[in-house]
Formats: sequence, structure tokens, C-alpha cells
Amino acid sequence: MSEHTYPEIQRGASLLLAWRLQDKKVLLVGGGTVAASRLGFLLEAGAHVTIVAPGPLESSLAHRVATEPEYVTWIERSYGRPDGPDTKAEDLAKDKTLPVTDFDMVFTAIDDNPLSRAVCDAARAARVPVNVADVPPECDFYFGAQVRRGPLQVMVSTSGAGPKVAVIVRDVIADAIPADVEDAIAGVGALRTELRERAPGVGGALSKRRMRWMIDTCDAWKLSEMGAMKSPEVRHKLLEDGWEKHTVLSAHDLGVSKAELEVVGSQISSFMHSKTFWPSVLGFVAGAAVASASFIAAARRK
Amino acid sequence: MSEHTYPEIQRGASLLLAWRLQDKKVLLVGGGTVAASRLGFLLEAGAHVTIVAPGPLESSLAHRVATEPEYVTWIERSYGRPDGPDTKAEDLAKDKTLPVTDFDMVFTAIDDNPLSRAVCDAARAARVPVNVADVPPECDFYFGAQVRRGPLQVMVSTSGAGPKVAVIVRDVIADAIPADVEDAIAGVGALRTELRERAPGVGGALSKRRMRWMIDTCDAWKLSEMGAMKSPEVRHKLLEDGWEKHTVLSAHDLGVSKAELEVVGSQISSFMHSKTFWPSVLGFVAGAAVASASFIAAARRK
Repeated sequence: MSEHTYPEIQRGASLLLAWRLQDKKVLLVGGGTVAASRLGFLLEAGAHVTIVAPGPLESSLAHRVATEPEYVTWIERSYGRPDGPDTKAEDLAKDKTLPVTDFDMVFTAIDDNPLSRAVCDAARAARVPVNVADVPPECDFYFGAQVRRGPLQVMVSTSGAGPKVAVIVRDVIADAIPADVEDAIAGVGALRTELRERAPGVGGALSKRRMRWMIDTCDAWKLSEMGAMKSPEVRHKLLEDGWEKHTVLSAHDLGVSKAELEVVGSQISSFMHSKTFWPSVLGFVAGAAVASASFIAAARRK
Repeated sequence: MSEHTYPEIQRGASLLLAWRLQDKKVLLVGGGTVAASRLGFLLEAGAHVTIVAPGPLESSLAHRVATEPEYVTWIERSYGRPDGPDTKAEDLAKDKTLPVTDFDMVFTAIDDNPLSRAVCDAARAARVPVNVADVPPECDFYFGAQVRRGPLQVMVSTSGAGPKVAVIVRDVIADAIPADVEDAIAGVGALRTELRERAPGVGGALSKRRMRWMIDTCDAWKLSEMGAMKSPEVRHKLLEDGWEKHTVLSAHDLGVSKAELEVVGSQISSFMHSKTFWPSVLGFVAGAAVASASFIAAARRK
């Protein structure tokens, strides 16, 4: 065993994950503003959502029920209370027509704390991941503050220090995300998909070569250039003259000169919108003013 | 129903989550570099991890097995093959001494693809969340590129466009995170904890007032000032003179003047390390040079 030193484990973190909900079934108990926020994230992830709540629904929930019938179903009653408000405490969450085991994930966003806990217990017992709004100890997972730019998603978590700080940090991060990142991700994603079609399989040597080639190609391209990979011709050249010939080609090698010009344009544009543009301009003006003042003062002294 | 317009749902996202693993049991199948990367994240999240892999283990795994016996257990054999390599295909993953149902989460990071799939199927059938390294379609969740700064965790996900782009974007974001964010989160976290002790409960009106007061207080403080809340005296004043008196106090109101001086110092320091410092300086020099050149040229013409 080598004489490495390993960093101390810094405990207290959560495990940040990107959960796949494409075509999964989700139970959302509640019909207010918190439920509405959950529904937005769930639909973006491609889930089929059953909302159980007595009406009236918050207006965006009502809108989604009306416009997304394939993805959103509304059952107009209290969850766990099929017999109405007189359901006994011990029968709460034993909702026989809508058992939690029918779902891949469960969310509650209601003010009825005993019902929240009952739903949570039922989900836990059935090993269905559950999130109870505003009751962190009852959750398998938390949400964080998020930014989305097309295929890019960023989450900020403060492990319970408070959502407001997470939002403040999220806003700082959102400002720092380069404008061309969406194009870069789309370009690289398309290249990766075509490479997988050309050289399929997992595990083995081909899969390792494929991963290595993708990494080396990304290293050879600037983020601001990667948008050029959205062009089928550029991808075709990369694969035919790069991958097939066991070599890595940069944007410059490919002679994507139009793209390069666009890139320069977009760099100038992103510089003008960046946090370094105004400091540079103000610095220039300040420098010119100070130098001018010195010369004028010197001229007067003469 | 009001006449709002609601944004189109942009599908194709994952649901980004902060999963809680404190004292949960995790099965990690594999003993190489990918398993080592998984183990780091799992231990930071406080999980108890059982590694199942024939030796030799990757060196950092071996180090954790030796130094973290409370959290890491190593079972030195192939998972699913208690009878050795001759275990029949249909018995793969039917590992009776280590059934997936004994665990809260399962990870495989092995080159043995049939075994990976068998473990995945067993976990799915038992509703245990599972991640299979390098085989996205077999996963309940993906990882993203991550940054951690003490209590702050940030994850970048590109929904499968490729880990390399996520790493590039992660590095841009890491540079943009303000240096004082750890102190801010620690300060606000401590305030939130003390407020909860003072005004406990979930649901009701007190809980709503508590959340509102935390948000308003955060809005009244700059991120760079929030580190001052790490002081018990500052928190005591905020709670006694703010919360108890139904008012919100800023850093200025509290007269944390020493903190304010430090804040100015740290702002100057963070400006000098920021992306705007050098552009300002270079702009200043360039401006001075251009102005000087003009004056010198004008003087020569005279």
C-alpha cells in the first residue's frame, strides 16, 4: 500500500443526486403553493403525478391539471380520508384506493401534521422515497435552491442552514454561469450520443476508449467553442477524422472558422456582459483621467 | 381562477435532491477507483458502508477500512458469488448473507456487467435505490460534478450530456462562490437552530412567523456580514431585541462595528482576489498609458 495521505472525512453532508423520474409515478398530497412548486420540478423531470387534495387547487396546479392530462391527475379529496374527515387516526394514510406502494416517490405538502407523519410512515415502511414539506426530520431527501439553463441543472444545498442562504448563493452562482453553456452541453451531448451509436457497449475496452476520447476531445475544446458541435457536419468530421483515426481534433484543427468567428463575437459579447467589462472600462477611464491630470498639472507648472 | 400565464414545462430534467444518509446502511459492490469515489461521498454523508469486493482494494478504500471501522466494513469476496466464481447466472445477486433488502441504498462499481444488472434488478424489485456505475439506463439516480465548502454543497448535472462538461461548468461555479459563504451559512444555521429552540413546532402560526422572520433577517444582512452571526452575543441580540420584539435588525442596527470593519477588510481582500481586480488594474494602466501617449505626442507636436 502506498504512503498516500488521505483527507479527513468532513461529515454532515447530504448525498447530492439527480433522480430519474421519466415516466415514474409520483403521489403529491396537497394543493397549495408548496405543492405547486413540487409539481413544477416533477413535470420537468417527466413524472406522472397524482395530486390528492380537496379543492380549490392553487391556480398553477389547476392549470396543469387542465392542460397536462397525460401527466397530471387530480383526485379531489383528502388523502387517507376516503370516508371523509371522520376517518379514524389509525386509518390515516391507509388509503386503500391509493396505497403509497402504487408510487415511485411520495410528497406531502399539507398543514395536517398527523396526516403528514402517517403518510411518511407508510412510505418508509414500503421503502418508497418520501419528502414531507417543512418537516426535515421526516424526509428521505431535501430540496435545494436550483438553477436550470436547458440541459444544465445546478442545485445548492446548505444541509439545513436555511433555504434563504441557499437562494442567495444560488443567485451568485446563476450570475456566474457562462451564457454559452447551454450550447456547449447540447453540442457535447449530441457528439456523445452519436459516438455511442458508433461504438456501443458498456464495460470492456471499447467503452474505456470511448470515455477517454470524449474527455480528451472536451479538453481540446474551449467551453465557448463546444456549441459548434451542434452542427452535424462538425460532429461527422470529429468522428470520422478523429475517433475513427484514433486521434483528437480541436475546433482549430477542424477549421470551423465560421464557428471560430462566431465564438470571438460571442466572447466579446459575453465579455461586455461579464463582471470584468465595467471594471476594465472604469479602470481605463480612471487611468486616463489620472494620467491626464498629471500632464495638465505638469504643463501648468511649466 | 386568475388569468396568469404559466411557463411551458421544459422536460428532460432530473429531480435534483439532497439525500439523507446519516446512519443509513449502504452496500457498495466493487473495490476500484470508482468505488473509492463513491465511498468518499457516502462517508461525508454519514452512511455506514459495506464494501463487497475481492482484494486488493484500491488504496484509499483500504485506508478507510483500516481507519474508519465504525463506518466501513469490507467483505472480501465477489458479491452474489458466495460459492466462488462458479455461482450460476440465475443465482447472481441472490446473495443470501447480504440481501439488498438489508440496505437503504445500493451502488455497483464493477466491470462484471451481468452481475451489475442482476444486482440492479434485485434492488429495483426490493425498491432499494440503486446506482450502477457507467450504465445510466440502469440507475435510479445519477451523480453530478460537485463542489463542497463546509456546509455548502453544489451539484452540477447535465442530464447525461457528459461528466466532462459538468466538471468544466463546476470549475467555473467553484471560482464564483464567495469566500465568506461558509461563515455566512454557519452563522445563519446557528441562528436558525436557536430560534427553533426558542419557538419550536411545525405547521401552525408560530412556525410561519419563524420562517418569515428568518427570511426578513437574511434579507436585511449582506452575505458578507452573516458570518458575524457566528458570535453567540450577536445571535442573542438578534433574538432578544429582534425576534422577541417582533422586529428585524440589520448588522448595522446591531452595531457590530468590529464585524463591519472586518467585512470592509474582507471585501477589499476578496476584491483583490476577484475577477474584477485585475481587469480594473489593467484598465487603469491601459488608460494611463493611452492618455500619457497622447500628451507626449501632443507635446512633441508643439
